[in-house]
Amino acid sequence: MSKFWNNRTRNISPYIPGEQPRDRKFIKLNTNENPYPPSPKVIEAIKNAANTDLRLYPDPESRLFRETAAKRYNVKPEQIFAGNGSDEILAFAFAAFFESNIKESVLFPDITYSFYPVYAELWDIPCRTIPLREDFSIDCTDYYIPNGGVIFPNPNAPTGISVPLADILPLAEYQMKQNKVLVIDEAYAAFGAEPAYSYTGKYPNLLTVHTMSKSASLAGLRFGFAVGSEELIEGLCRIRDSFNSYTIDRLASAGAAAAIDDSAYYDGINHKVIANRERAAAELRGLGFTVLPSAANFLFAKAPNISGADFFAALRERGILVRHFNKDRISDFIRISTGTDDEMDELIRNCREILS
Amino acid sequence: MSKFWNNRTRNISPYIPGEQPRDRKFIKLNTNENPYPPSPKVIEAIKNAANTDLRLYPDPESRLFRETAAKRYNVKPEQIFAGNGSDEILAFAFAAFFESNIKESVLFPDITYSFYPVYAELWDIPCRTIPLREDFSIDCTDYYIPNGGVIFPNPNAPTGISVPLADILPLAEYQMKQNKVLVIDEAYAAFGAEPAYSYTGKYPNLLTVHTMSKSASLAGLRFGFAVGSEELIEGLCRIRDSFNSYTIDRLASAGAAAAIDDSAYYDGINHKVIANRERAAAELRGLGFTVLPSAANFLFAKAPNISGADFFAALRERGILVRHFNKDRISDFIRISTGTDDEMDELIRNCREILS
Repeated sequence: MSKFWNNRTRNISPYIPGEQPRDRKFIKLNTNENPYPPSPKVIEAIKNAANTDLRLYPDPESRLFRETAAKRYNVKPEQIFAGNGSDEILAFAFAAFFESNIKESVLFPDITYSFYPVYAELWDIPCRTIPLREDFSIDCTDYYIPNGGVIFPNPNAPTGISVPLADILPLAEYQMKQNKVLVIDEAYAAFGAEPAYSYTGKYPNLLTVHTMSKSASLAGLRFGFAVGSEELIEGLCRIRDSFNSYTIDRLASAGAAAAIDDSAYYDGINHKVIANRERAAAELRGLGFTVLPSAANFLFAKAPNISGADFFAALRERGILVRHFNKDRISDFIRISTGTDDEMDELIRNCREILS
Repeated sequence: MSKFWNNRTRNISPYIPGEQPRDRKFIKLNTNENPYPPSPKVIEAIKNAANTDLRLYPDPESRLFRETAAKRYNVKPEQIFAGNGSDEILAFAFAAFFESNIKESVLFPDITYSFYPVYAELWDIPCRTIPLREDFSIDCTDYYIPNGGVIFPNPNAPTGISVPLADILPLAEYQMKQNKVLVIDEAYAAFGAEPAYSYTGKYPNLLTVHTMSKSASLAGLRFGFAVGSEELIEGLCRIRDSFNSYTIDRLASAGAAAAIDDSAYYDGINHKVIANRERAAAELRGLGFTVLPSAANFLFAKAPNISGADFFAALRERGILVRHFNKDRISDFIRISTGTDDEMDELIRNCREILS
């Protein structure tokens, strides 16, 4: 605590990202990175960009990326917002669309991405959590109450469970009637959920948020984007331009545009991720684990007869990093990112040994 | 205006960055980029980073960069904060150290970097501008009043005029006595101002903010850093981790560390920038211009018998982009970034023609 911090800095509880180990080699299944490398075309585009005009500011409007993404997602460039990772876009969305000093709270699930309550605190926005069902799924009808906005990931994290589009669209409709925004965080949608981005034309209050960190295998590049109506995208731009006009560097822009353009490569690696995930889920169930049905690139699993904290520690001891959340209802679960075939074999072998 | 925007988004007046032209080739002297390319070692470091683990998140603590910068600036790594350009760091500093809902205002000059009032509005911080002296210099004793914090660039922008350290340190002392922060934005300090970073050890309330965009010729990389006491740096980290834990990608980190390490190269190009600036200033004065004494990589100059807006337009017409601020006291000035020798020759030739 410092006398130079203001009240916000003193009182806020910052988000704690997953460990990025430096000193020891782990099988790293803790932060949902893609186990396969990015497309070679991405690397090439970055190297070309490194040779070109790094002394000049980037295009603050990221037109190259937005035009490429617009083609791919069949929307207008003005319906795409590019940001420094989806986290930055989420921070801007809270700043742009959710109101302080009102009675109605922003709603999100009690078990979800743990950055949401931090954003709410940062911008002083009232928020309220809605419990997941007993089976850890989201019941969209629980959100049909007066609110200041709704946000959740689809599939949800850390559960991995997806919500059908047939449940999301009526919620977008409900939100429209009260002039409130619905943000669907589609960070993991490429691994099995039904994406909602193509409905942003129909629902001008619907914003979908995407990241290059998972399905595009570019966590190290810091790039995310959002799809929404022109008025929502303009709102995000107004906040960005009041914060940091250029949040994406020339290299990231070039790499992200190349990634959007190489869906053949990415479909290939992401099919492998899904296959590895399903095989690991089946084997973990065979060992007696409870494994939630995942539409993401990770599994949320509970070991038989051992606490989540102990299981996490036992895996770490053996050189395998997963993630554990010390939180009501889920403290006996661990979240396991999907690795390569070999990594998942190692995981299963170690799980078997720990349990025996 | 959209019904989905909150009050902040509706009311804020975003910062307007300088034009980044796409369709026409200009002599670009409008956004204070360095006319010389970055060090070849920077490009090499970026290309190596592109080949390495882009699928993994970057180190959220930017340790490689901070250790490199700490050595160079003779401080501890814990006294360095790395950010996505100095703008992001300034946004975090306003969020971390300046208080909303208090009587005392944050103080900055009436003519200065036009992003400061935007940050104040973004975070709802009361602010008050202090007029520059008649000669456009900052009088530090004007800031010896109760305040919520003080921030200014040294050298100031867009005037280019620097403040001697002998005036800054007593202000840091004054601020210490009221437990308030002094932020010195040293974006342009490498071109001639006395830097204050080595006094951050003595004044735990003093934060200096630096950018790679100007002196390191890396505007396209989005990298800035701050030097300050461990408690100030921790305050910035708390806000960053409540906003976007990883704001710097692997490529920018690697490039910035390489730039910090190659001061021989950068001393060389920045001496050339200073020489070009001084030659251009002398020639402009010869043409009858009023040119403020610059310690930055730009000149702030007033043409004889023609308005700033008209002169800006005439240069643009001739393919030379400079910056004009339509603002009290300075509307007859234009800001000219220092280009290469040839570019400055072209500038002078065109100025001569416009005036004749």
